[in-house]
Amino acid sequence: MPSVGLGIAGLGTVAQGVLQIIGRNHRIILERTGIDLRVARVASRSAKPDVDLLGAQFGADLDMLYRDPAVDIVLELIGGEDTARDLIRSALMAGKPVVTANKAVIANSGNQLLGSNAEVPLRFEAAVAGAIPIVQAVQQGLVANQFEHIVGIINGTCNYILTAMAQQGTAFDDALRTAQELGYAEADPTFDVGGIDAAHKLTILLALAFDAQFNLPGVYVEGISHVTPADIRYAGELGYCIKHVGIARRSADGVEARVHPALLPAEQLLANVNDVANAVLVKADAAGHTLFSGPGAGGEATASAVLADVLAIAAGSGARQAQPRRALEYLPIEEIVTAYYLRIPTRDEPGVFARVANALSTHGISIEAAIQKEPRAQQDVVDIVILTGDSREREVDAALAEVRALPQVAGEIARIRVESLE
Amino acid sequence: MPSVGLGIAGLGTVAQGVLQIIGRNHRIILERTGIDLRVARVASRSAKPDVDLLGAQFGADLDMLYRDPAVDIVLELIGGEDTARDLIRSALMAGKPVVTANKAVIANSGNQLLGSNAEVPLRFEAAVAGAIPIVQAVQQGLVANQFEHIVGIINGTCNYILTAMAQQGTAFDDALRTAQELGYAEADPTFDVGGIDAAHKLTILLALAFDAQFNLPGVYVEGISHVTPADIRYAGELGYCIKHVGIARRSADGVEARVHPALLPAEQLLANVNDVANAVLVKADAAGHTLFSGPGAGGEATASAVLADVLAIAAGSGARQAQPRRALEYLPIEEIVTAYYLRIPTRDEPGVFARVANALSTHGISIEAAIQKEPRAQQDVVDIVILTGDSREREVDAALAEVRALPQVAGEIARIRVESLE
Repeated sequence: MPSVGLGIAGLGTVAQGVLQIIGRNHRIILERTGIDLRVARVASRSAKPDVDLLGAQFGADLDMLYRDPAVDIVLELIGGEDTARDLIRSALMAGKPVVTANKAVIANSGNQLLGSNAEVPLRFEAAVAGAIPIVQAVQQGLVANQFEHIVGIINGTCNYILTAMAQQGTAFDDALRTAQELGYAEADPTFDVGGIDAAHKLTILLALAFDAQFNLPGVYVEGISHVTPADIRYAGELGYCIKHVGIARRSADGVEARVHPALLPAEQLLANVNDVANAVLVKADAAGHTLFSGPGAGGEATASAVLADVLAIAAGSGARQAQPRRALEYLPIEEIVTAYYLRIPTRDEPGVFARVANALSTHGISIEAAIQKEPRAQQDVVDIVILTGDSREREVDAALAEVRALPQVAGEIARIRVESLE
Repeated sequence: MPSVGLGIAGLGTVAQGVLQIIGRNHRIILERTGIDLRVARVASRSAKPDVDLLGAQFGADLDMLYRDPAVDIVLELIGGEDTARDLIRSALMAGKPVVTANKAVIANSGNQLLGSNAEVPLRFEAAVAGAIPIVQAVQQGLVANQFEHIVGIINGTCNYILTAMAQQGTAFDDALRTAQELGYAEADPTFDVGGIDAAHKLTILLALAFDAQFNLPGVYVEGISHVTPADIRYAGELGYCIKHVGIARRSADGVEARVHPALLPAEQLLANVNDVANAVLVKADAAGHTLFSGPGAGGEATASAVLADVLAIAAGSGARQAQPRRALEYLPIEEIVTAYYLRIPTRDEPGVFARVANALSTHGISIEAAIQKEPRAQQDVVDIVILTGDSREREVDAALAEVRALPQVAGEIARIRVESLE
């Protein structure tokens, strides 16, 4: 019945979640696993908040975490990048296994960190989609499969905002302000609504699914600030929901890695994952479509994943550690082939639709569905909404350049990719 | 780079799925895990079908599987009960790890089998919900949690039939016939539509989540043959879908274990899992609500889970083996507290609703919502549909006995439990 000493870096919500779970569930974990979790040391440079440290030593010196012989596993829960990465590296070099919830560090420095001391475990279940055991699902549950695609709603802030826009018809700015008031978005929301956070998580999923190196710079990234309530409404009329997704896909041309808003078929489970929830849809050659959903953030929810890693290490789990090997270049975004939603604001003149359709047709782009409403009184601009057939993005760009040059086009053209999820 | 010899019992769809996956993905599995899967021997008492055995020895003698030194892991994929159980026991006693997809054997004999030679792994990911790695999620991904409830759509036949009834308005018998024609239901469908198959799977989930012994006889079981298109329609009007679910719940009074049709809130993800898909919703104290969905059956989908177990054993995974310990009695069904959907066919006479409401009220049962439509011409029986507040089943039974005795009641009363999923 081994006693396992934990050294926790940080005392934010996830670290506090770890302490709360151990405080509450220590005995049940011991009964289940035979592992006696002890918090040996907590290190934080901020003042100690009023939380029960379960008898742990407390100090500001992070290095003590891996120097203290009472610490068997280091939990990196400080967030940020440089300090966290240095701590992880030092701990691994000192032979201490590390568990981290830090997606930025793994996405940016995972190749070096996982290579630095391959004998010593470094695990990061909590870095992707919080409580959802998706790293474990990809690495173990689906280990016998070839992955065809992974489509994830992996940023709770974006999902909250798009859900609010869809359900209440509010504009992006208003929904963002509400999200900030509720604590679902940061004061500076760029990281989330700009798609960077989702790109970190997608980078990790990609590396695991395709047995490749982490390659954050190769991921195409687009945020949600350009999505309008009108787009969400038109998408609904066409039978789709708009979600912000990270997509990894193996196509005939290569591996796609992209983060952007997308129209998803409304009847699909993934399209019905709302508010701050996260979900990951995996298509694999043997298992078919599996979906994993749950809370993507939150102290105890994230801590649940951290402790799953801790207990796997403590059990001496032989489950393979992510060992990024081959470098993998992703397909340039211009080369992807998918369907597109287009919204083209035009002045209501005869023949406009024909000219738009002609420009698309010239580039081999078919029209699968379209909406053009009668203009209302006093309204001289009408939206032409088109759902294209599968088309190469380069051709869509070229066609839209022609459309944009039409004298009847009266505003910014919206272009959102469509995912069939099949 | 260890070579691992597999001995496969059976040559049905799951066994063929295992062979197909290894044939196709051998190299990628080797690269990922370092494990070189070899099919050493296949044993089946039926004639050898025309499938590639990947160079394995073939014979009818199941005992050769664990006697052959070339076999490192035995895969029990014959189905049925007695022969399968005997094979598993013999293999474990011979020191050979076993992987099985056999829910009946684990639910009925898991206590003895897992106790028989605790040093030798016996794994059964494929026994619950096919391709979905739900055993792993409960045992590893959520290992630090206390489980509050598990609600699973764990029988694809029932889900197919209820989905068809909901979407096409067909009666149970017609939907069953279609399911049989499509191969989604057996010629004798009792096992599936009667709820026994779901009870096997729930028994396994319960034992894992509550660290308890398998206790199949303790599970309350109800099938779907009494669900009518009218119930599905009324449920829809009230904002619910009817699904066949297995429920494990820790309540103030004890642990509930029950399999039956239930009304689920239509906006919940679980209620939108349709056709033959399976899904399991888990509520745990730290992780909150997580949901896992995917194919619950099918050759390669189930084989994907079988191979996950094989590779975990081959990797020498220290992940704890299910070790049922304490006996756990479940709460008698009369003692559960939940909301109820009631449909009471009555002759259209004044004061009927009041008398029904009065009978409920006498037993402390509140009415949360009700539907009573004007009778159509020529129709002398009208349905009174009621959604109750949370009530103890014993009280509901007593109240319904009184209602049934009312002279205006003109047919069988439908009573379906309601799950809030909260």
